[in-house]
Amino acid sequence: MSEEQTDARYRERMQKKKEIMDARIREASDERGVIIVNTGTGKGKSSAGFGMVARALGHGQRVGIVQFIKGQFATGEEAFFRQFDNVTYHVMGEGYTWETQDRSRDVEMAEAAWAQARALLQDETIDLVLLDELNIALKKDFLDLPTVLEDLANRPPMQHVVITGRGAPQDLIEIADTVTDMRKEKHAFEAGVKAQKGVEL
Amino acid sequence: MSEEQTDARYRERMQKKKEIMDARIREASDERGVIIVNTGTGKGKSSAGFGMVARALGHGQRVGIVQFIKGQFATGEEAFFRQFDNVTYHVMGEGYTWETQDRSRDVEMAEAAWAQARALLQDETIDLVLLDELNIALKKDFLDLPTVLEDLANRPPMQHVVITGRGAPQDLIEIADTVTDMRKEKHAFEAGVKAQKGVEL
Repeated sequence: MSEEQTDARYRERMQKKKEIMDARIREASDERGVIIVNTGTGKGKSSAGFGMVARALGHGQRVGIVQFIKGQFATGEEAFFRQFDNVTYHVMGEGYTWETQDRSRDVEMAEAAWAQARALLQDETIDLVLLDELNIALKKDFLDLPTVLEDLANRPPMQHVVITGRGAPQDLIEIADTVTDMRKEKHAFEAGVKAQKGVEL
Repeated sequence: MSEEQTDARYRERMQKKKEIMDARIREASDERGVIIVNTGTGKGKSSAGFGMVARALGHGQRVGIVQFIKGQFATGEEAFFRQFDNVTYHVMGEGYTWETQDRSRDVEMAEAAWAQARALLQDETIDLVLLDELNIALKKDFLDLPTVLEDLANRPPMQHVVITGRGAPQDLIEIADTVTDMRKEKHAFEAGVKAQKGVEL
């Protein structure tokens, strides 16, 4: 086959692909707030949430963030996003539960963090709410799932919510619009690489 | 079982978990640049890369970004990250291949973008390099994979690289330190929801 024929076939194939993509884009016409869940054991659940925060800020949108687990990790994004006026940032106190070892305090902290989340979910000036590691708090029963689902359902219709953390409960997956299961294929930590600034910290 | 006993058992379990985590953290002592690959058909591959950019900037690090596919999407993050002095941002011209329908131009554009990437991979003042959608360019054979692998191997030893896009080639997965397969469980687009600012745009 000559190069000319190859090029012609390539153009034809791409033309077909373009038609399919254009049709799909035309059909997807709803504009409304969506719930996005990033779950699974792999890396990138929270990072993807923070990437969406960056994208929203790029459009001049207002963003609310509640981090349900504050550990020794996850400090770079806090330092970074706190500097923007368009960002409201709350961090649940006290760190990982295996650091605190006090269940009643964990529950109290989670409930206080949820009160912050609820305020964001009632504020229609907030375009995007990131509930980082909420799934962990739900998995450990620190929060009442029906209450969480109700507050999510009652949010402003155009508001987007991103929820991260491994072990997303099935009822949350049901009501979500977009769910990604981030599967770990390999992790540097297991090969003896320390958590490093800009990567995990 | 009394509440006191439950609390005691909880503390004991959490204490054990803390010991395991602390030991794992002690053992992971290597500090070196890592290659992180976000692949799969789900949402969040690029967003997770941009979240890592935010984290690195939070630590005052320098970041280089090359986007190998510029479509009608993905404009929020560009607008956002271009405003920082610590960020070098290159976008490959011309948009998706099914928009351009010209393979030789696609190859030319990809090669020009790789020249930008190589310059970043030779600059030891850059802490983190994001090669967004590089996997697509590799999958379509727009770039020579051995050359890409060699340039990655020859980068400064402390430099981190994040590579995104579906269909990561096996040889790239082999040399990567951390690989996440982001699997689509559900996507709002399929339920007729339009790509929206702050979410996909």
